[in-house]
Amino acid sequence: MNAEQEARLRRATAGHRLLCAAEATPSELAQADVAFGQPPVDPARDSTRLAWVQLSSAGYGSYDRADVRDAFARRGAQLTKSSFVYANPCAEHVLSFMLAWARQLPRAFEEQRGARGWPQDLLRQRSVPLTDQSVVLFGFGSIGARLVELLTPFTDELTGVRRRVQGNEPIETLRFDDPRLQERLAAADHVINLLPGTPDTTGYFGAELFAACKRGAVFYNIGRGATVRQEALLAALQSGQLGAAFLDVTDPEPLPAEHPLWSAPNCFITPHTAGGHHDEGDRLVDHFIANFERHVRSEPLRDRAF
Amino acid sequence: MNAEQEARLRRATAGHRLLCAAEATPSELAQADVAFGQPPVDPARDSTRLAWVQLSSAGYGSYDRADVRDAFARRGAQLTKSSFVYANPCAEHVLSFMLAWARQLPRAFEEQRGARGWPQDLLRQRSVPLTDQSVVLFGFGSIGARLVELLTPFTDELTGVRRRVQGNEPIETLRFDDPRLQERLAAADHVINLLPGTPDTTGYFGAELFAACKRGAVFYNIGRGATVRQEALLAALQSGQLGAAFLDVTDPEPLPAEHPLWSAPNCFITPHTAGGHHDEGDRLVDHFIANFERHVRSEPLRDRAF
Repeated sequence: MNAEQEARLRRATAGHRLLCAAEATPSELAQADVAFGQPPVDPARDSTRLAWVQLSSAGYGSYDRADVRDAFARRGAQLTKSSFVYANPCAEHVLSFMLAWARQLPRAFEEQRGARGWPQDLLRQRSVPLTDQSVVLFGFGSIGARLVELLTPFTDELTGVRRRVQGNEPIETLRFDDPRLQERLAAADHVINLLPGTPDTTGYFGAELFAACKRGAVFYNIGRGATVRQEALLAALQSGQLGAAFLDVTDPEPLPAEHPLWSAPNCFITPHTAGGHHDEGDRLVDHFIANFERHVRSEPLRDRAF
Repeated sequence: MNAEQEARLRRATAGHRLLCAAEATPSELAQADVAFGQPPVDPARDSTRLAWVQLSSAGYGSYDRADVRDAFARRGAQLTKSSFVYANPCAEHVLSFMLAWARQLPRAFEEQRGARGWPQDLLRQRSVPLTDQSVVLFGFGSIGARLVELLTPFTDELTGVRRRVQGNEPIETLRFDDPRLQERLAAADHVINLLPGTPDTTGYFGAELFAACKRGAVFYNIGRGATVRQEALLAALQSGQLGAAFLDVTDPEPLPAEHPLWSAPNCFITPHTAGGHHDEGDRLVDHFIANFERHVRSEPLRDRAF
């Protein structure tokens, strides 16, 4: 947080006591009514006062535990997140990956930095428009909802997959154990991983899942690195079972320079930049202040996790 | 055209005489009623028989001359084009450029091919979402119309500029001499050149136009290379007046390896691939056959230029 953002936060919380992390002791944190940022989970669970935590991230995987949900429910506390800030930039990132592949941009830019040839025929033949392509989205939340808005002009062959299907999703959305998932996966041109990092999702994308994809499908990961078994991903790229992979997250991060994914066939990596944007800090503070004003007026909070 | 496409064309035109270019003499061409492809302009103008020409390109710049229009009008001949085939891939190409810049993909891919560092903070700070950005599109035809569909989920700050404003454009569309163009240009984050190559458009994008842009605006060219004064473009990139340029077309093509645009700051080049796609040839033939069936039934042709 820069000085201007901190000043804005101080003005918006005037009349309340505001402690920034650097100046708060553990015992002071235990006395907070509200926390904003990435407060440690166990103290937040165990606090008797903490009525509301707003996370400065889109995901809330670290808080998504039965013991934390129970403790929050017992004392009537709420968890909100910052999906509002990150959903659109993350969805734009996924679409930038999809279109970069559709239009063969990585190969063209590599040519520019290298031989400066003019591989016009090759790249035209390799270009596959997104229109009417089939897409499966794993982990359907705010990012998925925004991505559906962006993809709607291209295709309606969209299937979501999520743990708790709510019934109000804008596209057909299946549970992970739905038998129709196999056929959707076998037909998908694009498989998009938006899964949060939880014990349930660790290693979900492995050899079995990649084998169930259509040969040549493109895999995208802007969820969490640990949801993918990277040896299996590498093997699927090397065999051509996956046509390409676009990864914004890896395990570990940073990905070591000698890691084989850097040079795997048609594997393209961005350094966990999917949610980032130039005014991200301002928007996180604005989003918190708007919710803080609702909290003071006892109105429903936005972007609620539980 | 491959053998399968030629066979399809022969079946669809059974009962008519079909001459492929390689086997047709100039005098045979002069006796054609219908031409499909890129027939030379002057013979098409001077023919007394030719009732319909379908160009295999989205643009018809070479035919867009008063003498050709007059000759076609006098004998009731029609010119159609293949925008139907190219509008979407071209629009996808423009959006792939816009999102690649928004998400800083070229810098990330360069890092992958080079140092394999993890410039996470730098690229997050440089990322500027497309939402609510302001866009001016020069040359508003089928590609522009499709691009508006793709951009609608991002922004409604869209202005078109075209020679003949029809009044049915989906966004506010100005003539080139409209005094409001200057203010739209001064406000635009993205300036998109879709202009055809005609004597009127040669060198339209020069020092004066770039100076009228907002500092840091991004320029895109998927029109024709000759519409841009490349020294002026180079200077605008070097001074930072333009924040970036994405070029699918250059003058000449291929762009010689020693040309300074290849290494200009934030200049990204694809080798005239914007309209290309893997089944382009099939779709060109399908589009012609559909119009041929309309022609035989004396129904209105689609994709008509004049």
